[in-house]
Amino acid sequence: MMIENKARKAKNASRELGIMSSGKKDKALEAMAQALENNTEDLIRANNKDVDMAVENKRPKAFLDRLKLDKNRVLAMSEGLRVVSSLPDPVGEVISQWKRPNGLIIGQQRVPLGVIAIIYESRPNVTADAIGLCLKTGNAVVLRGSSEAIHSNKAIVKIMKKAAFDAGIPEDSIQLIEDVRRESVNELVSQKGLIDVVIPRGGAGLIKSVTENATVPVIETGVGNCHIYIDVDCDLKMAENIVLNAKIQRPGVCNAVETLLVNRIIAPKILPGIIKVLEENNVEIRGCSETLGISPNITPSCPEDWATEYLDYILAIKVVSGIDEAIEHINEYGTGHSEAIITNNYFRAEEFLNRIDAATVYVNASTRFTDGFEFGFGAELGISTQKLHARGPMGLQELTTIKYIIRGSGQIRQ
Amino acid sequence: MMIENKARKAKNASRELGIMSSGKKDKALEAMAQALENNTEDLIRANNKDVDMAVENKRPKAFLDRLKLDKNRVLAMSEGLRVVSSLPDPVGEVISQWKRPNGLIIGQQRVPLGVIAIIYESRPNVTADAIGLCLKTGNAVVLRGSSEAIHSNKAIVKIMKKAAFDAGIPEDSIQLIEDVRRESVNELVSQKGLIDVVIPRGGAGLIKSVTENATVPVIETGVGNCHIYIDVDCDLKMAENIVLNAKIQRPGVCNAVETLLVNRIIAPKILPGIIKVLEENNVEIRGCSETLGISPNITPSCPEDWATEYLDYILAIKVVSGIDEAIEHINEYGTGHSEAIITNNYFRAEEFLNRIDAATVYVNASTRFTDGFEFGFGAELGISTQKLHARGPMGLQELTTIKYIIRGSGQIRQ
Repeated sequence: MMIENKARKAKNASRELGIMSSGKKDKALEAMAQALENNTEDLIRANNKDVDMAVENKRPKAFLDRLKLDKNRVLAMSEGLRVVSSLPDPVGEVISQWKRPNGLIIGQQRVPLGVIAIIYESRPNVTADAIGLCLKTGNAVVLRGSSEAIHSNKAIVKIMKKAAFDAGIPEDSIQLIEDVRRESVNELVSQKGLIDVVIPRGGAGLIKSVTENATVPVIETGVGNCHIYIDVDCDLKMAENIVLNAKIQRPGVCNAVETLLVNRIIAPKILPGIIKVLEENNVEIRGCSETLGISPNITPSCPEDWATEYLDYILAIKVVSGIDEAIEHINEYGTGHSEAIITNNYFRAEEFLNRIDAATVYVNASTRFTDGFEFGFGAELGISTQKLHARGPMGLQELTTIKYIIRGSGQIRQ
Repeated sequence: MMIENKARKAKNASRELGIMSSGKKDKALEAMAQALENNTEDLIRANNKDVDMAVENKRPKAFLDRLKLDKNRVLAMSEGLRVVSSLPDPVGEVISQWKRPNGLIIGQQRVPLGVIAIIYESRPNVTADAIGLCLKTGNAVVLRGSSEAIHSNKAIVKIMKKAAFDAGIPEDSIQLIEDVRRESVNELVSQKGLIDVVIPRGGAGLIKSVTENATVPVIETGVGNCHIYIDVDCDLKMAENIVLNAKIQRPGVCNAVETLLVNRIIAPKILPGIIKVLEENNVEIRGCSETLGISPNITPSCPEDWATEYLDYILAIKVVSGIDEAIEHINEYGTGHSEAIITNNYFRAEEFLNRIDAATVYVNASTRFTDGFEFGFGAELGISTQKLHARGPMGLQELTTIKYIIRGSGQIRQ
């Protein structure tokens, strides 16, 4: 009931928020940014409770690092809100408008989705980002963060909510679910009619559980089993640079490469160098039997490797007979995120772009560019790996829908 | 297993179909149209089995009418396919393309969704329409029609599949689920990874059951509890014409009006005339207490009336205090389909367009225009009443998604 109440409050607030002027929303975003800065000490104090608990629970160092807030990170959150404030508001844009022979004028106008629920894991900055992006696009937001960041999230929401309210935003536009039991997620994703879309941000387990239990429409994000295919005809140095960048520039993120596919003819020439440089950078290689033939000291791969998103300093390598096998492998094991070919050949470049079924397909570039900022959107609320509504990096536009506004002069249907 | 097999076959076929040229797809559509005409007698013979069964089961006359195929209806199906063949193919269109400061060229290209499952009720022409629209847009299709039209559907699919195959379309692109047990729907909507989207077309019960059980993304269609609000300042004759048209031009469809809201000040002046002409056209009126005060002989409404999609010669009438109450009533009871205001007042027209949360919002026109053909799309696969991906009439474009195609020259992320 608590969750239904919060969803209902958000729905009611969304009616007012949805038709609010961009100027008013932008001022509220500025005020929220300022409020975070003004309350940095309170935020860090609240965050310390979460960090202490994580230390007590012996959580890994990488986890602690993601959880921790300091002065610079609070500043980064408020800077993010100011950037969102400065971006153009997609709401109200008329994408197209036409006149029918009977005189009806039909326009397709961008409007907010309504109420967006976001379910996410430990990083507290997601709380501020999500509030900013939803408010900018006129959507009310219901947040369900993890129990491990609950003190941080409560503090962030409290500060931002007050600043927003003082700037004229309906108070109920921002809702935090403080019930961190697992059941609260299922209850949240069943609020059909009150919540318009749910966006899970986190590991494969969270996303699977949400899609299985939701009656509200879901935008799936983030799971990335990404591939690079090295064609027989390519620039060897470019291939090496791109593979290294896609693997080690930031291995823990969804657009990092997980499996390298190499054309059989070029494999003996290129693999020894690539494996050497990867190993020098602490990457563990798991190779197919042919890769082992070329580089006998690596770990043999097992079938599960082709389906694994390591998010770590590990790379699977498979030698393939050519572009057909590469494309089939990717369409079979890929998660539809980011896929790349390294080639000098025009026809194979076009074929790869054409036949790969994924959100983003690259020729001669690192998969690491799949990102709202790198695409030039100025903001991002995750990367959709599904096909409905949004595919690839989601910016402000993806947080809107359309409605048809139709102006008549007494038309009736014959 | 049978259903999973069919879904898997469709998925495999979709890879080839998705990159097929428009010319080849259009020729196949022509061939399928011709094949339906050439086999009219076989189709009618198969349809007779369904009709006989329906007569035996004492199904209502309206049902028999929807089910029955004759020469003209077969001709209408083949004509529909020819029209779809003549429309532009959305697949391959690059919606936008831009260059980043690092030289990456990012393009947003329309591609097929992949495999579309359509679950529908009795009308056999939906079978031919759905196959045509999916094939045109490079999507494989899995059809699950009702048991009551199974002989007709089998005959249509057999004829169209053969013609498509002869024209070079992968044989498995068209799949009919012949298992008409209720469980087969649940099995079909759980084929995540094989089916990309499911579109239920039918009554509220079917749609509810599909959204509750699906793990595959769903596009909800069709439930329309539509309203017309008559403002205090309006053309009385126009209001009467529009209400009459929206109610009786075709009462059994989703864009027909179900509740009329009337401003209190104008109600005594306009309602007697409107009620009279509706009653002359066999419409039963269910009125609120104020409506009864004006026209005492009508049936009193009960609270359920406000939430009911009659799809029949029945209209609920409620007197309201003004545009605020009208908008609140519509946003509370409406299904987000089609809503109209009749007014001469500029500000109230804009306010209604702005604040109503529905797929289509009209000023001074009949709700009956919510339709892909009336919008000028040339085709329609239902009317979406949800907000993700497609909202309002769905044409060919709504059966596609996008992918980012990115051309680089060795870019790596800094």
